[in-house]
Amino acid sequence: MTENGCEYRDRVLTMDTMNPNVKRVEYAVRGPIVQRAVQIERELKMFMVGLRDCDRIDCEFMDGLCGCDWTDCEFMDGLLGRDRSGNELRYGLHGAYSTSQGIEMIRQDIARYIEQRDGGITCDPDNIYLSTGASDAIVTMLKLLVSGEGMSRTGVMISIPQYPLYSAALADLGAVQISYYLDEDNCWSLDICELRRALQEAKKHCSPRALCIINPGNPTGQVQSRQCIEDVIRFAAAEKLFLMADEVYQDNVYADGCKFHSFKRVLFEMGLEYSEKVELASFHSTSKCYMGECGFRGGYMEVVNLDPEVKVQLTKLVSVRLCPPVPGQALLDVVVNPPQPDEPSYDTFIKERTDTLATLAEKASMTQEILNQVPGIKCNPVQGAMYTFPRIHLPPKAILEAKEKGQVPDMFYCMKLLEETGICLVPGSGFGQRDGTYHFRYFSLFTNKNDEISLGYVCDKGSGVLVQKELMGN
Amino acid sequence: MTENGCEYRDRVLTMDTMNPNVKRVEYAVRGPIVQRAVQIERELKMFMVGLRDCDRIDCEFMDGLCGCDWTDCEFMDGLLGRDRSGNELRYGLHGAYSTSQGIEMIRQDIARYIEQRDGGITCDPDNIYLSTGASDAIVTMLKLLVSGEGMSRTGVMISIPQYPLYSAALADLGAVQISYYLDEDNCWSLDICELRRALQEAKKHCSPRALCIINPGNPTGQVQSRQCIEDVIRFAAAEKLFLMADEVYQDNVYADGCKFHSFKRVLFEMGLEYSEKVELASFHSTSKCYMGECGFRGGYMEVVNLDPEVKVQLTKLVSVRLCPPVPGQALLDVVVNPPQPDEPSYDTFIKERTDTLATLAEKASMTQEILNQVPGIKCNPVQGAMYTFPRIHLPPKAILEAKEKGQVPDMFYCMKLLEETGICLVPGSGFGQRDGTYHFRYFSLFTNKNDEISLGYVCDKGSGVLVQKELMGN
Repeated sequence: MTENGCEYRDRVLTMDTMNPNVKRVEYAVRGPIVQRAVQIERELKMFMVGLRDCDRIDCEFMDGLCGCDWTDCEFMDGLLGRDRSGNELRYGLHGAYSTSQGIEMIRQDIARYIEQRDGGITCDPDNIYLSTGASDAIVTMLKLLVSGEGMSRTGVMISIPQYPLYSAALADLGAVQISYYLDEDNCWSLDICELRRALQEAKKHCSPRALCIINPGNPTGQVQSRQCIEDVIRFAAAEKLFLMADEVYQDNVYADGCKFHSFKRVLFEMGLEYSEKVELASFHSTSKCYMGECGFRGGYMEVVNLDPEVKVQLTKLVSVRLCPPVPGQALLDVVVNPPQPDEPSYDTFIKERTDTLATLAEKASMTQEILNQVPGIKCNPVQGAMYTFPRIHLPPKAILEAKEKGQVPDMFYCMKLLEETGICLVPGSGFGQRDGTYHFRYFSLFTNKNDEISLGYVCDKGSGVLVQKELMGN
Repeated sequence: MTENGCEYRDRVLTMDTMNPNVKRVEYAVRGPIVQRAVQIERELKMFMVGLRDCDRIDCEFMDGLCGCDWTDCEFMDGLLGRDRSGNELRYGLHGAYSTSQGIEMIRQDIARYIEQRDGGITCDPDNIYLSTGASDAIVTMLKLLVSGEGMSRTGVMISIPQYPLYSAALADLGAVQISYYLDEDNCWSLDICELRRALQEAKKHCSPRALCIINPGNPTGQVQSRQCIEDVIRFAAAEKLFLMADEVYQDNVYADGCKFHSFKRVLFEMGLEYSEKVELASFHSTSKCYMGECGFRGGYMEVVNLDPEVKVQLTKLVSVRLCPPVPGQALLDVVVNPPQPDEPSYDTFIKERTDTLATLAEKASMTQEILNQVPGIKCNPVQGAMYTFPRIHLPPKAILEAKEKGQVPDMFYCMKLLEETGICLVPGSGFGQRDGTYHFRYFSLFTNKNDEISLGYVCDKGSGVLVQKELMGN
């Protein structure tokens, strides 16, 4: 029993309950020697031999590789970690490994950004882990949580519909997926009664230990109310569930009366009973919101109330992959540390961000309006995120034809749409849906007022109408 | 049984033998609809709705985020996928997701690069998978290979000393590590008799299915002879082992008489008996060689003789993480597609590469020479890679003191070295070593002729001598 043993003994995720395989992982290259060296480095000029690789040979080398004749690289100053005034390097070059948890200065910037978002609630940079997109951090956290066999096997609650990373990761880890259904008739809202039903059912065959929430929702586009988040936190506390809050669309909220509330902030505003007890990991990314820089694979998670011994295991686990991509880390720093009013690019930045978010909001609203004009399609409001998950009515003949072809009906529908119109939608069955209902995921960004080709094609010439008409005629 | 069933039935890695959890993974966002859409896209102008994310909103947006006032970005032309003549975009922007297997044009470039390296032996771009550094691809391949319980649990042969990614990944996956020892007395060469001994021993308690080779060696710096590689391939064929060749140091060969031979080339030059039968995955990266751009996390693997049905599973598995970082992919393209003689930066590139490799070779040679001057240190030649794994003699008193402190003796040595001199080395125990022997890993790049501070400190004032003298005096 460690000194933290008493305090953390009744947490969900402890040394006793965590994935035993992860405990067995050893990774000396970033082990105790290196951790001690990093401590010393803060006080002492020293040599790090054998660890930081060959980038320092010659930082001009890449210029040559780029084949660009040593030209100006001012454009990339921000991304390369130079400050805006010019040449000073804020952190290392992209070509060198960073610490596995992510560059410390960037974690400090992220912590300040989170504090500002959450009305000053403290954020410790040591609780921030940078990652290869949010997906990487989500899988890492799930991996830590999975253990046991048979009745003791970890169960993880995920919404249906869900972003399929969750079901895929749970299958890969051999964990039990516990599905709770969002309420399509109420704008895909989360219903605590349904959470309770799913949990009770699951307790018969596994050990439920985590609850995943996607807010704003993907693929459903709903935004949770503050009341709902409080209810979820009370439920997690009562049922001893580790909360995973996927908040990568936190800047994408459009609908009147909707607002993004972070789980962290709500948790801390609910008082010590919750803020010192409920374990939470929340995830963010550079891939969504107004940034949309998904190719860089920048992301981070913040962990709250994590058992310190488990945190050591987490740090060890992420060190096996050495570090998240440094360009993605640097991009994240640019995102959390945007131009300030006294800086030359401030006006440009504000205009760009405002325009982008306004466009997204307009497209969200148009998407609902236009899709609902199509007979056989019913679309909830896109309150947030960038997606909608419209329900499609498929006539019995279509369902029959799909079954004859051995296809799920909405897969059959989407494949037909693709073949006949060139429009590529992802069938609802990949995200999960109630039996007997059919959907597709639609990316609201592609709705366009001036040039209605993309969505116009869906509603005027193709999609539901086209396919259904044809099938009805069979 | 599929049409490929007969041909691939007796392979090591088949649908029957692969990791059953991976088979259960579903990832519809990049599933059949998208695969069919990509086929159609090659022939047809079409809309991809709901898949390619928001980067296309406005590609100027990032300029604003960078805070650099829309300046020139010529420097990054190469990395951004523009051709060298100017503005044409060779492939998408870094900010957009790529296909999960990696950008097709880059895979084609890699295939040509491999063909050139291997004297024209065909390389199919569809057998190339881009990855987040080589580590990512290695873990993915190991994950596919792991299945069974008890006596049937997959065993994977790894060298000792090894790069600890392997032992860490095997622990994480719950696979059985089968250790074969490299021969320190013969420049850390691989001995087939030792492979055989390790395999026979392992067969008593697990099901050996893969053999991992690191060539040139990390942390040992040896380069395998062509004869040795042929022997390994024969051994793998006879014992039905899946070969994993970690060849990330393929450009780092320094010693006279040593040459890099790729497993792929040797396999194909051994005739149909092997080239159509032995399953191989080989790994490369932008992090090592003359590039050393490790922060970008660029890497790839080539798979050879993989069961086509397993390949579908592999493609599905990598799609769960969406795509490798696009800047890393672009950097890889720059590496495999270097400046040509008629291009303006050719001379600069050649000079830079030649100088870098010459410096690495000189440092490799100096490292051996200088380390062997230190009493109590014995260092094999650094034939390749960037490391050496010198053996240290620790006096009994030091070993006793380490044991009293509950530390492995070489950890104790390295920690003392760090505390007293600020020099940070990784103890041999993290890489594996024969019982009763002690080593550390040393990064040969840090040996410096003109300014001998780093290694000079090791041999003149600190390290072995210092620590051992002090301990002997106790």
